[in-house]
Amino acid sequence: MREVVIAGVGLHPCGRFGDKPYVDMGREAVAAALKDAGIAWSEVQAAYCARMYLPATSGARILKTLGMTGIPIADVEAACASGAVALSQAYMAIASGFYDVVLAFGVEKMPRGFMDPSAIYEDWQIRMGLAVNPMYWAIAAKRHMADYGATALQMAKVSVKNHKNARTNPYAMYRREVSVEEVLSSRMVCDPITLLMVCAPNEGAAAAIVCSAEFARKHSARPVQVAACVPRTSLYPWFRAPAAYVSARPNPPSVTTRAAREAYEMAGIGPQDLDLVELQDTDACSEIIASEELGLCPVGEGGRLVDEGISEIGGRLPINPSGGLLSNGEPIGASHLRQIAETVWQLRGEAGERQVEGARVGLCHVVGAGGNAAVTILKR
Amino acid sequence: MREVVIAGVGLHPCGRFGDKPYVDMGREAVAAALKDAGIAWSEVQAAYCARMYLPATSGARILKTLGMTGIPIADVEAACASGAVALSQAYMAIASGFYDVVLAFGVEKMPRGFMDPSAIYEDWQIRMGLAVNPMYWAIAAKRHMADYGATALQMAKVSVKNHKNARTNPYAMYRREVSVEEVLSSRMVCDPITLLMVCAPNEGAAAAIVCSAEFARKHSARPVQVAACVPRTSLYPWFRAPAAYVSARPNPPSVTTRAAREAYEMAGIGPQDLDLVELQDTDACSEIIASEELGLCPVGEGGRLVDEGISEIGGRLPINPSGGLLSNGEPIGASHLRQIAETVWQLRGEAGERQVEGARVGLCHVVGAGGNAAVTILKR
Repeated sequence: MREVVIAGVGLHPCGRFGDKPYVDMGREAVAAALKDAGIAWSEVQAAYCARMYLPATSGARILKTLGMTGIPIADVEAACASGAVALSQAYMAIASGFYDVVLAFGVEKMPRGFMDPSAIYEDWQIRMGLAVNPMYWAIAAKRHMADYGATALQMAKVSVKNHKNARTNPYAMYRREVSVEEVLSSRMVCDPITLLMVCAPNEGAAAAIVCSAEFARKHSARPVQVAACVPRTSLYPWFRAPAAYVSARPNPPSVTTRAAREAYEMAGIGPQDLDLVELQDTDACSEIIASEELGLCPVGEGGRLVDEGISEIGGRLPINPSGGLLSNGEPIGASHLRQIAETVWQLRGEAGERQVEGARVGLCHVVGAGGNAAVTILKR
Repeated sequence: MREVVIAGVGLHPCGRFGDKPYVDMGREAVAAALKDAGIAWSEVQAAYCARMYLPATSGARILKTLGMTGIPIADVEAACASGAVALSQAYMAIASGFYDVVLAFGVEKMPRGFMDPSAIYEDWQIRMGLAVNPMYWAIAAKRHMADYGATALQMAKVSVKNHKNARTNPYAMYRREVSVEEVLSSRMVCDPITLLMVCAPNEGAAAAIVCSAEFARKHSARPVQVAACVPRTSLYPWFRAPAAYVSARPNPPSVTTRAAREAYEMAGIGPQDLDLVELQDTDACSEIIASEELGLCPVGEGGRLVDEGISEIGGRLPINPSGGLLSNGEPIGASHLRQIAETVWQLRGEAGERQVEGARVGLCHVVGAGGNAAVTILKR
């Protein structure tokens, strides 16, 4: 298999953009990625577009505004891990030599208001009234509190850290610092999760130009290696074992843990080799739990990472230096590729005030509906 | 690259099935394909689900009813060519050695009534009133009549042939023979296209177990080789050059022609080597035009294939022995894989009364919205 690199990335900001068409948002991200890579649109040989709430052939509709080059263009979807499907297909196509340059991009423009539960949940969950995301986050948080002593204060600190990181991220949706008191006293969504501890569904676009190391060398780009890209599905109806909600661990490994183990093996590294992590903090406690699932610390000690400043920029292992989902929201199709863009900039030393000094290895993680998760490891 | 084969196929019938959930339809097709291949569900290492009108994570929702094995499962979509995206990703994964056994399947349950034009058309088309499929088919048909002398009688004969073929196809939606007079006197949809010359949007599911030749040899299956699987997008806003609707050819090659040329080259064959073809007869004249685009006859002579009995079962090159889209309808996500299942059965000599004697090489073709097309060539 050939070495696979990302030659360039581009983002459209995350947020709400009124009537702005998703086609424009997607095109802007792709054009930025092409420019960043120093690669012409006509050189791209295939494209994968991740999207969940957009119409059929979104990818082709976006890309034809750049010129119709006749390449294969497919839309792909795996809920929160959609962007990782786009990236993993590009990875496979490049590694195996089918193509030299592939575009992986994601775009989303989510409906406003209460989310249609049928887009995510099973009929039985809707009938039982168990069809609102924060309910599951709250159950997992309560379980973690009971089993390991995680506190609402630790969760608030996660939110404070991520909002602080986003302050200087021009692509983040929320760039205002918040205090522990503000987080704890914000509206209760689902005990113990408050409003400032949950991420927003929103809009955005992200793109990566994926190519062979050999192709990248011929351009002026600063390539970043894709050392692993592993999408997987859960062994359980939800993304943690049912037991994780109702009893103390040990539980069978979650889909995040399984994807991470495979990714570490594929990349030939362990969690101790990571310089930064962008992970799925749909809510503040999910950052604590995912840190444990990814092996960043022993099970039950995720809260310590924020308590001791380990996960801050400047700490031993910065988590969500971009501000994470708490500050960027989750434009689902774009979300993983947004993490990828952030990590590429970090590994190139171009992250400005939120730069993790000397970063050489980064991990990106998503998990969500349908029991889909993915772990990608990038190296420079 | 390794040789890629289809070890087994399965279908859910095409038609309308009331409240029957798409999950059940998809599971039945997948279970049939696994049984046909003699392969256990637990041996499948990745899955691609083609669908256009179904909710997010349809693939995972269907497959978890067979057991949650934790494999990567992605939904994919490229309008009428969706099934070819699923198959081409499976092909790439097997050929390159990433996996040994991959499931490519498609399922669809299309809404009834007038089709939402925004699912297929651009805003300008909707505003211009140019957002109904048969309008484009009729314009192309009129152009072909003016340029090359195709007749409504030839189109009627295509419909008669395909309905006749479907008579003994247990998976077809319409299994009743029709006469030339019935076709010509059925309700006019868009001159010269009558009701019995157009295909129905509907429901169905189709699955193929794709694996390495080496893996297949260890099982009792009768593998069929995937000699090429080429999805492409158009160089024009619609799937033929705009000039094709308003002036005599020669026109630049259509997306069908480009995909076919690449597929022939990849398979190392030419159209003269084909024993049967399943092609996109969304309407009767599309069979005539696609025959030319695929190189089955010179441009302008597509009507001769049906006039002279060449495209009948028993003719020199049977076209749509399954009954085509005219008899099976077009359950979009399932449509290409339905063609694949038919062709696999034909190449194995298992097509019953509609068997094409001695068939060794078959071609499957789809084309549609977003300018997506695909050509797959199977060999035994």
